[in-house]
Amino acid sequence: MHLTLKFLNQQPKKFAKRLAKQLADYAGGSLMAKKQINIPDSDTLIDRLKLEDLLKRRFFYDQSFAIYGGVGGLYDYGPMGCALKQNMIQLWRTHFILEEAMLEVECSSLTPESVLKASGHVDRFVDWMVKDKVTGACFRADHLIKNHAEAIIKDKKAPENIKKELEDVLIRLDGMSCADLGETIRKYDFKSPLTGNDVTEPVSFNLMFPTQIGPTGDFSAFLRPETAQGIFINFKRLLEFNQGRLPFAAAQVGTGFRNEISPRQGLVRVREFTMCEIEHFVDPSDKNHPKFEKVADVELTLFSASNQLNGKGTEKVKICDAVASGMVDNETLGYYMARTHLFLLNVGISPDKLRFRQHLSNEMAHYAKDCWDAECLTTHGWIESVGIADRSCYDLHQHSKATGVKLVAEKKLVESKQVDVVEAVPNKAAIGKLFKNESKKIIDLLKNLSLEQVDELEDSLKTNGKYSVKISDDKTIELDSTHVEVRKYLKTVHVEDVTPSVIEPSFGIGRVMYAVLEHSFRQREGDEKRSYLELAPSIAPIKCSILPISSNKRLDPIIQAVREELTSREISSKIDDSMGSIGRRYARTDEIGIPFGVTVDFDSEVEPWTVTLRYSVTMQQIRLKVTEVGDLVAQLVKGKINWDNACQKFPIFNASQDND
Amino acid sequence: MHLTLKFLNQQPKKFAKRLAKQLADYAGGSLMAKKQINIPDSDTLIDRLKLEDLLKRRFFYDQSFAIYGGVGGLYDYGPMGCALKQNMIQLWRTHFILEEAMLEVECSSLTPESVLKASGHVDRFVDWMVKDKVTGACFRADHLIKNHAEAIIKDKKAPENIKKELEDVLIRLDGMSCADLGETIRKYDFKSPLTGNDVTEPVSFNLMFPTQIGPTGDFSAFLRPETAQGIFINFKRLLEFNQGRLPFAAAQVGTGFRNEISPRQGLVRVREFTMCEIEHFVDPSDKNHPKFEKVADVELTLFSASNQLNGKGTEKVKICDAVASGMVDNETLGYYMARTHLFLLNVGISPDKLRFRQHLSNEMAHYAKDCWDAECLTTHGWIESVGIADRSCYDLHQHSKATGVKLVAEKKLVESKQVDVVEAVPNKAAIGKLFKNESKKIIDLLKNLSLEQVDELEDSLKTNGKYSVKISDDKTIELDSTHVEVRKYLKTVHVEDVTPSVIEPSFGIGRVMYAVLEHSFRQREGDEKRSYLELAPSIAPIKCSILPISSNKRLDPIIQAVREELTSREISSKIDDSMGSIGRRYARTDEIGIPFGVTVDFDSEVEPWTVTLRYSVTMQQIRLKVTEVGDLVAQLVKGKINWDNACQKFPIFNASQDND
Repeated sequence: MHLTLKFLNQQPKKFAKRLAKQLADYAGGSLMAKKQINIPDSDTLIDRLKLEDLLKRRFFYDQSFAIYGGVGGLYDYGPMGCALKQNMIQLWRTHFILEEAMLEVECSSLTPESVLKASGHVDRFVDWMVKDKVTGACFRADHLIKNHAEAIIKDKKAPENIKKELEDVLIRLDGMSCADLGETIRKYDFKSPLTGNDVTEPVSFNLMFPTQIGPTGDFSAFLRPETAQGIFINFKRLLEFNQGRLPFAAAQVGTGFRNEISPRQGLVRVREFTMCEIEHFVDPSDKNHPKFEKVADVELTLFSASNQLNGKGTEKVKICDAVASGMVDNETLGYYMARTHLFLLNVGISPDKLRFRQHLSNEMAHYAKDCWDAECLTTHGWIESVGIADRSCYDLHQHSKATGVKLVAEKKLVESKQVDVVEAVPNKAAIGKLFKNESKKIIDLLKNLSLEQVDELEDSLKTNGKYSVKISDDKTIELDSTHVEVRKYLKTVHVEDVTPSVIEPSFGIGRVMYAVLEHSFRQREGDEKRSYLELAPSIAPIKCSILPISSNKRLDPIIQAVREELTSREISSKIDDSMGSIGRRYARTDEIGIPFGVTVDFDSEVEPWTVTLRYSVTMQQIRLKVTEVGDLVAQLVKGKINWDNACQKFPIFNASQDND
Repeated sequence: MHLTLKFLNQQPKKFAKRLAKQLADYAGGSLMAKKQINIPDSDTLIDRLKLEDLLKRRFFYDQSFAIYGGVGGLYDYGPMGCALKQNMIQLWRTHFILEEAMLEVECSSLTPESVLKASGHVDRFVDWMVKDKVTGACFRADHLIKNHAEAIIKDKKAPENIKKELEDVLIRLDGMSCADLGETIRKYDFKSPLTGNDVTEPVSFNLMFPTQIGPTGDFSAFLRPETAQGIFINFKRLLEFNQGRLPFAAAQVGTGFRNEISPRQGLVRVREFTMCEIEHFVDPSDKNHPKFEKVADVELTLFSASNQLNGKGTEKVKICDAVASGMVDNETLGYYMARTHLFLLNVGISPDKLRFRQHLSNEMAHYAKDCWDAECLTTHGWIESVGIADRSCYDLHQHSKATGVKLVAEKKLVESKQVDVVEAVPNKAAIGKLFKNESKKIIDLLKNLSLEQVDELEDSLKTNGKYSVKISDDKTIELDSTHVEVRKYLKTVHVEDVTPSVIEPSFGIGRVMYAVLEHSFRQREGDEKRSYLELAPSIAPIKCSILPISSNKRLDPIIQAVREELTSREISSKIDDSMGSIGRRYARTDEIGIPFGVTVDFDSEVEPWTVTLRYSVTMQQIRLKVTEVGDLVAQLVKGKINWDNACQKFPIFNASQDND
């Protein structure tokens, strides 16, 4: 049984997932979907090469260790990318953690093998891989098949019957076992794409990075593939922190690591990435959410499992209707979907390039109740950026089983109830007399018998007059009815233990950021060479540029005064006093998404000092006092007023500099 | 040659370092130091067990994977620790990155071996380790010797001559080679402290966590032991981002990993930790700092190298005087020391428990110019929390050597100058004719000859009439004066390449946080059981508690109104509507350092709604309108007004609840 990897950086692994995509993208569904949610045609998608050039040139990010030749799937964020990401995370914290008073934690990346064994990652977090028999180069078996098959299907000269077969292969690809994959590669004689050499049979490859903790070399550990496990492991302390009450949510922002076999697609598939994960613990019998009302009318673009299976497209649905109709399993899941939708729009995802796609029932892990991915349309296709899943009690249960620690919450019963209690009651005196030093161990063992074991004990005493207890690897002792009896009685209980269900929204912040960059990329009408980023002021890496119109030193005190106006309000700014016309410098600040620009000119010197403030999107300017700059920009950045408001408050300044 | 590990989580490794400590702590210097900087005696230090109990109980942090038995040196931050740390990092960003317009980057943790080979970590980032011959348990050789020696020295029955010898051993310990360590252990027959078994000879143990990238298993990598290398590797792009100009600073907040042999001392020595590092790149011939004037009068407690060697204590010195006298090497180093001092006081380090200790000349790496550690006094002794070093051009030079990529800045010369140029000029036609396909290779080789190689070539042509060039492993060709000539001429240059010096302030934020917690721990006078944390409002994990005086539902709308007042200003709050007297609930919020508390009582219901606001340190309360709460608390948290100002603005509310 595959583990459903509930998150980004993850290949679609399941038959059903691909089937859905096939239906949508190959078999005409994509047309329908497009009509339904009004996606721009692919030829109106942005020019990715231009964007990538901009992002590299202005150091949003670049391949890590570039001067050493680079390493696939590892990226360094430069000043612009780093600030953009930090701002997005800050907004995420405000939107989720602060708003819901979530418990934020920060757990270790280094994780002992035993923990990831319990979570299922050691056994099932794998991809199938083949190697070039001569060079040893490695490829994901499914990618190898997909690329070959797609090339043949596109090839006009290829025989129709083979094309048909390969279309069927593509549909079945994600459901294929190791043997299926190997057989397919052999049948069509697929070779290494780099050399044309034969490839080996597929072998499994675990995607976690292995290491050892401590000096002995025998403490196996991995770098965590997700941050979620750290939260599950701390459940008891977190529940206690929340004064024992359900529901509550914990959150974590941190790094996850996945040793992709051959990463591609830039920031979309990487080996080290920041995750923002929430684990919302809730009584499994009551998944209503107290704040659901607040989002009830939010309209989402939903791509339900049944629409995927029926070849239908997406539909716009109010989240309250989706929950009421049962399309979305419960209020808490729906609440987080709506909140996620609002967050993604806030940071700059285009509403017409956002959809929530439901996992098909056989695409989810067996324990999951319902799962929706927020997908963003980019030039790489629809990319999964957030996964929102009801994971039921699986993780807590697994860690409890592995450690023997109860991971449950106490739930007050509405009415107290009578329960049958069956327990083994040791006769301490008799046991102590016979077993001396070992008696404590025996008494503890008896007290901790499971219900089934107590039944066995009763049976054994009845049938054989004795009961065998293994007290160590090489010692078993025998007890009779003088040592232990089975007691059965009714007990009134006022609380019961419940293992909470977990609703998990999991954000791949690098993917969201990449989608935001694509969705923010603009070219000036009539001057397509002038590209720029229209970033929301709240996430823009730098909020305001300061451009002196001349390098004359007389302007320096004014420049410094503007900078202090901004810095004292914690607004990041960048002084561009380089050569070049003011128009070219505007273009350069627009390119990296600086929304506001202060220009200091020679009129600025007239007391009280004034400057112009320009908005990159409209290129309009207003004129205001230096002492007014800080407050105005702060309000614009926080979204307390918008540019139109500002234009009403301050005189428009007519300048032709943008055309210089 | 040892690599000086320029940072926290680091054992004092050098003879000189220990010598300094010996002088200060053993030989009477500590008394002097105490007088000098007026340290409270050790018995006025806080009760660490009480603090640790509080931190664990209220989930500031706990051992990672506790339900699996825990892993040494790994800690998880709970909601309180996580928020405290985040707030400290946010303050750090504002204090350093925003204030200086630094270029923040975020680089990969996974680092190829070749990079860490160049930086010196693969060869020299080691500790010496011995193993229990029977159980295999590992110990740091120096720790083993130190613990045994100290025990014997304290033992009243031990012979005096042995004690003398061992005192000498302690002084020499950090300068000891592998052989010295082994000999000492053998001579005194030191055994495993756990079992009394013999231990092995010392072996070196590299402190980096090893792993592999990709599926082939032959791409060796490590988890980065510091974030600094990522900045050095990106130097070229960062310089370009800064429009080619020096000086500029880059910064990084990220995780470092060190595989400590046997971590102890809680947060002080850990295997995974957050670092905040700055690399300030500066022209080596001008290390003045443009903003030095702003901090010139800041007075620091300095423990200079000469004072350490002469057994003198610390002294309070204005940073301008320390730079002027040459005690601190240059303005940029001094600037960062002063800024670090201000930051540490901001976050709550006690000025009387803070000192800057200079590294002794033989304690620094050979390339370092000067280095000062900000040390905080805790119950674990003086702990190194920030290292501020002038690393000269070492790192850029090493990476440049390893990659062949020039890592330099262009410096405009004040006056252009004439330089002698000596170069080998290939005769392309002649070479092409003779060597055909190989000619391009030969021409490139000739163009890239070093000055020495050009001299050799000239010599060889003169003496032998020919010059041999190795063009591949198994092929050497010969050139004569028809193929290449040496040209010498004068050239006018206007710029020159400089490899920048690097000033590096490196913060171990976990250590700073631990010291802040110790320095903030208080017990109420006359009621010592009531302990609390007096945290600066800016870093307090939660800024404001909301305490309804009764669980009556009538108060709910007022509670919600207060919460929205706070949340809309991004102020974290915690509603405590649990049972228990208001006094006990105050005590509970004080314990986790919540500075402000709003109490909603039945008078609150009178329109316009009012509440009381309490300050945890003075336990005073004022009464104000609900609509005034958000702005007032926001101003208090940002330090725009203090509690005394607030008391003047709003009526004092007299309540006896604190004694309930």
